[in-house]
Amino acid sequence: MKKKIGLLVTGGLLVSSTAHAQAPTVEGLSVSLDMVWIMVAALLVFFMHAGFAMVESGFTRSKNALNILMKNFLTISTAAILYLALGYALMFGSSIAGFTGMDGFFLTGHEDQIGFFVFQAMFAATCATIISGAVAERMKLSSYILLTVAMTAVIYPIVGHWVWGDGWLAELGFTDFAGSTVVHLTGALGAVVAVKFLGARLGKYSKGKVNVIAGHNIPLGALGVFILWFGWFGFNGGSTLAADPSLIPHVITTTLLSASGGVLASAFYTNIRFKRVDASLTLNGALAGLVGITAGTGDVSPFGAIIIGLIAGVLLVEAVTFIDRKVKLDDPVGAIAVHGVCGIWGTLAVGLFSTSTGLFYGGGITQLGVQAIGVLAVSAWTVAAVSTFLFIVTRFTTIRVTKEEEISGLDFVEHGSAAYELRESVFSDNSSAPEFGTGLVHRLNNLESPSKKAEAN
Amino acid sequence: MKKKIGLLVTGGLLVSSTAHAQAPTVEGLSVSLDMVWIMVAALLVFFMHAGFAMVESGFTRSKNALNILMKNFLTISTAAILYLALGYALMFGSSIAGFTGMDGFFLTGHEDQIGFFVFQAMFAATCATIISGAVAERMKLSSYILLTVAMTAVIYPIVGHWVWGDGWLAELGFTDFAGSTVVHLTGALGAVVAVKFLGARLGKYSKGKVNVIAGHNIPLGALGVFILWFGWFGFNGGSTLAADPSLIPHVITTTLLSASGGVLASAFYTNIRFKRVDASLTLNGALAGLVGITAGTGDVSPFGAIIIGLIAGVLLVEAVTFIDRKVKLDDPVGAIAVHGVCGIWGTLAVGLFSTSTGLFYGGGITQLGVQAIGVLAVSAWTVAAVSTFLFIVTRFTTIRVTKEEEISGLDFVEHGSAAYELRESVFSDNSSAPEFGTGLVHRLNNLESPSKKAEAN
Amino acid sequence: MKKKIGLLVTGGLLVSSTAHAQAPTVEGLSVSLDMVWIMVAALLVFFMHAGFAMVESGFTRSKNALNILMKNFLTISTAAILYLALGYALMFGSSIAGFTGMDGFFLTGHEDQIGFFVFQAMFAATCATIISGAVAERMKLSSYILLTVAMTAVIYPIVGHWVWGDGWLAELGFTDFAGSTVVHLTGALGAVVAVKFLGARLGKYSKGKVNVIAGHNIPLGALGVFILWFGWFGFNGGSTLAADPSLIPHVITTTLLSASGGVLASAFYTNIRFKRVDASLTLNGALAGLVGITAGTGDVSPFGAIIIGLIAGVLLVEAVTFIDRKVKLDDPVGAIAVHGVCGIWGTLAVGLFSTSTGLFYGGGITQLGVQAIGVLAVSAWTVAAVSTFLFIVTRFTTIRVTKEEEISGLDFVEHGSAAYELRESVFSDNSSAPEFGTGLVHRLNNLESPSKKAEAN
Repeated sequence: MKKKIGLLVTGGLLVSSTAHAQAPTVEGLSVSLDMVWIMVAALLVFFMHAGFAMVESGFTRSKNALNILMKNFLTISTAAILYLALGYALMFGSSIAGFTGMDGFFLTGHEDQIGFFVFQAMFAATCATIISGAVAERMKLSSYILLTVAMTAVIYPIVGHWVWGDGWLAELGFTDFAGSTVVHLTGALGAVVAVKFLGARLGKYSKGKVNVIAGHNIPLGALGVFILWFGWFGFNGGSTLAADPSLIPHVITTTLLSASGGVLASAFYTNIRFKRVDASLTLNGALAGLVGITAGTGDVSPFGAIIIGLIAGVLLVEAVTFIDRKVKLDDPVGAIAVHGVCGIWGTLAVGLFSTSTGLFYGGGITQLGVQAIGVLAVSAWTVAAVSTFLFIVTRFTTIRVTKEEEISGLDFVEHGSAAYELRESVFSDNSSAPEFGTGLVHRLNNLESPSKKAEAN
Repeated sequence: MKKKIGLLVTGGLLVSSTAHAQAPTVEGLSVSLDMVWIMVAALLVFFMHAGFAMVESGFTRSKNALNILMKNFLTISTAAILYLALGYALMFGSSIAGFTGMDGFFLTGHEDQIGFFVFQAMFAATCATIISGAVAERMKLSSYILLTVAMTAVIYPIVGHWVWGDGWLAELGFTDFAGSTVVHLTGALGAVVAVKFLGARLGKYSKGKVNVIAGHNIPLGALGVFILWFGWFGFNGGSTLAADPSLIPHVITTTLLSASGGVLASAFYTNIRFKRVDASLTLNGALAGLVGITAGTGDVSPFGAIIIGLIAGVLLVEAVTFIDRKVKLDDPVGAIAVHGVCGIWGTLAVGLFSTSTGLFYGGGITQLGVQAIGVLAVSAWTVAAVSTFLFIVTRFTTIRVTKEEEISGLDFVEHGSAAYELRESVFSDNSSAPEFGTGLVHRLNNLESPSKKAEAN
Repeated sequence: MKKKIGLLVTGGLLVSSTAHAQAPTVEGLSVSLDMVWIMVAALLVFFMHAGFAMVESGFTRSKNALNILMKNFLTISTAAILYLALGYALMFGSSIAGFTGMDGFFLTGHEDQIGFFVFQAMFAATCATIISGAVAERMKLSSYILLTVAMTAVIYPIVGHWVWGDGWLAELGFTDFAGSTVVHLTGALGAVVAVKFLGARLGKYSKGKVNVIAGHNIPLGALGVFILWFGWFGFNGGSTLAADPSLIPHVITTTLLSASGGVLASAFYTNIRFKRVDASLTLNGALAGLVGITAGTGDVSPFGAIIIGLIAGVLLVEAVTFIDRKVKLDDPVGAIAVHGVCGIWGTLAVGLFSTSTGLFYGGGITQLGVQAIGVLAVSAWTVAAVSTFLFIVTRFTTIRVTKEEEISGLDFVEHGSAAYELRESVFSDNSSAPEFGTGLVHRLNNLESPSKKAEAN
């Protein structure tokens, strides 16, 4: 399912700022309306980064809160510039054998696609930021940025070309409306590989015991989930790529219903499984439903969306438990379960619930088979590419902070500061604020010691 | 004032995803533009749930923060699905004697109304979530969900049918542009009845003394108010149901001005009344102004909007004081004053300030009388329906947690977890974190004890 | 560069609520679409106030958090009403010698400009709120409100008239697309003067030493930065004043890229300069990039936008250091550096990077010269006007709280309350919660003591 860039190309109609002041035409208005909708959607996708930042900082410890925030800000910033320079060209440039695009670097020759570019740039950043949650509390900021560069400049654009450019999976009939596979599974597999290279946080697995490392601010995390849900309406809704009055409300509705199904299923299922409504898993249940509906949001019925969400919510609970306790991949925010497991589920669900091609609607198993091929191909590429990249990087540097640094917290080590107001009585154990009160805590305007240090150099 | 569904029905023009790719027409574009505006508005109304969640958790104690967040997430999720299954059919189905609709369950036969449906679904959830704040810190999660089911599937849709469907109040000329009565008063009256059934929180009223139970995170609550205000522009602005270039900016303007009036009035009035600018009442003053303008936002002048907001801001302060100290209804977040008292004020204000029918604009007292009838009728129905429902429920189960559970906090009791990072020095009194450090605190990935417990069963 | 009000005037086409129900026309749809885009943008600009509130409260101490929140709520509320009454008339009324407008108070005679008014009203409030961060933690609430009145009713509208009305700077060719000078520099210069009148916070500069006063909740501040960035797309994007399908995506893209450049530059530069990635400066780097691109967002290339942002990010770091340590202006949130220094940079950058008139694109130095004149003229006016105003005010009253009140914190002194749940162990030093536990802490519903006090008077 190639994304129809054509609708958003403004050059074809020669609608310029000047032209607009002239008498409006039906064709011009149609282009303008599509553009307004896509830009609104792009802004909503941008705002998802605030959601990721709040979820990831809220669900981890306060001593690493600044670090995860910096990772999120640097992800969107790095991605925006690199996707302009390289990513967009690889993803939507003229295809070389269906594997990659190879023209339009810095939008050269494609200046009239700027609206489509900026919408897609927000997506590229989303894919990369999924990793930041899984590697939280131990990955060096510099190494994380290197991985973000690889993801947004090359690894993700190749996947995007296959499915949304003139790529081979698009030719095959692989359907991923807004990116259950392209964005979420790709990000989650990057996370799996990175966590494999990094290992678990200190104290997570000790003497065969799986320990809990609780987040520090769940209300902030809950706000993050609401922001993600809000932004997701743009993520899915904008993927219509046009102000289509039938398709947009359909997408908004299925997105709402699947997320709702995810919340309800996680809440009820944790109540059955653990005898309590688990708050964090229920919050992740919303995200599970959202990832689950992303591939099929335009193709499934409202009722189908509810079922997809309900299944995603149960899957999420089992996947978090399984990954945490059996596979022993230490993923502080559950990103691999949410984006990976539910990304696969959402992609396959198109083969089951699509009202045009799905198995349950008389479409046979062809679509389901194509969806499975897509999942496997994207998985193979992403795992291979990220593994190779991290293998090379780790020949030259360590990507993980030292044991002492991890205990101190990355906020102190990498930023010389702390996320919250410090009072001796509040942080009396030394894990979160070592050397408190000695002048080593730096924030805005706190330039005394660091600058002295700098001048001393 | 029946809401004009017609404008948003896409089927009539046979504008489908396919049709859109064909040459655009003026009629098709008009439908598309209306739809884009209504969908943007629907998303803003959705985002109000983040606002409610932050206000309600910020204004209550940290030991109940997770619980209130879960109630908010489960409200929107339950409402979305039930409003599809039942609520929309009762509200907008073919009318039975002006009392209720009765067809279109699961949108069957009305698939082309999906845009209007999803906009209305966000409203249904808003009505229900108003109750969650008032019953915070003591109502069982399960009982609250039962009440949400009743509200979104039946009680609210009936009110909606009367006013926005082909109901008898619409026939009578009752005017409620975006829901001062339909949404806010209905929710607030549900809250009054629920609080009556529940009783006050432990320690609120003791030996004739009214005690203060302070919220735990007012900055989070303030953010929530800003989010609600932001979302309210969609709540009121989307109720235009069309991209009307005269009406939309008028609605945005009157909404801005009334909320501003509410803030200023609450700030100045608390400064006169209590010799200090009360922060929480000023925040609620913004909401008071918003509820107050909701019924008349399309019908009053900018100047009228300022007056409505100023009066709402003063009313709010007096209403919170009166309800808290005289009526002794324990409403932790002031929801009854904000949504109930100001909901009535806003509804009656149409009869005074409407530039077409209001008393102050030469329209006589007819409109004011009709508005009063609407308030009384909706009040009678809501109080009777919610009372009956809760009376039945309380025959079978208790709807309130035990005294011990309330002291421990609902986060620990219902979710086995805590909202914030725990440090002994931070929460040294045992009210918020009983048995801290014994392994009973569970968060994301903290599946050790609960699952063991589950396996043991 | 006069803002083209004409496009948003609905009256000319007689498109009324009634007309809309009639057959749509191409001209009518064009007006409707422009209006929808501008209204979406206006709401995003409104939401920036939530961002300012979170940045300012997060970057200051918890004992002043309520106070800064109140200042933010009162700013938007005061500005909305005063801009209707006075500001809009001065800014966009018929010009008197290019210096000020002088008709249309309360929109009288200009009712059909209500959409343009409400968009501009959000801008007026933004200019004023910039000051609130710089004067935080010591300026009396009442004095701050007086200053807000002066800024939104007169000082800012005069600047606005010069540049966006029929003013003399517009005639001269001064270009400020969305307000690097009009909004940001004007606000920042108001802040400079106010800080000069106020002096530094207690303990900031002692015995020639520059001390650090750390913020209390950086994650909340980071959320604020994300909200500001999100809203800024409306701030810049809406300044197109029309749904122009070429210009809007160009503006969104340059805004994204410049902010990204700001983040990257601040992160890398603080790492070089201070041997660590400074979190607060990196967050401010995003805002630096946003302020920097605001004047030229419609006129510079994507590549130019990256360069503008990179330079803004470095400038920000140097400016904060210089203002804090050399000039010794105590600006708790860095507002003067962000909005002032980068506002000047952004304005001059048009003269360098504008693809039509910039020095680097063969346009010579004319534009650069005009931009410099604009900066100087606006600076002279703003500094003179704010100085005069504060000089007069300080003849009648003190604008700063007493030393004892500052130590106690403004939340207790001005609001009789605290922002966070109080526990003895949390706030054990008496700076943030004096007389804790004696019944003097008041929040919502906490009307016992203050009302008694009021009754006693």
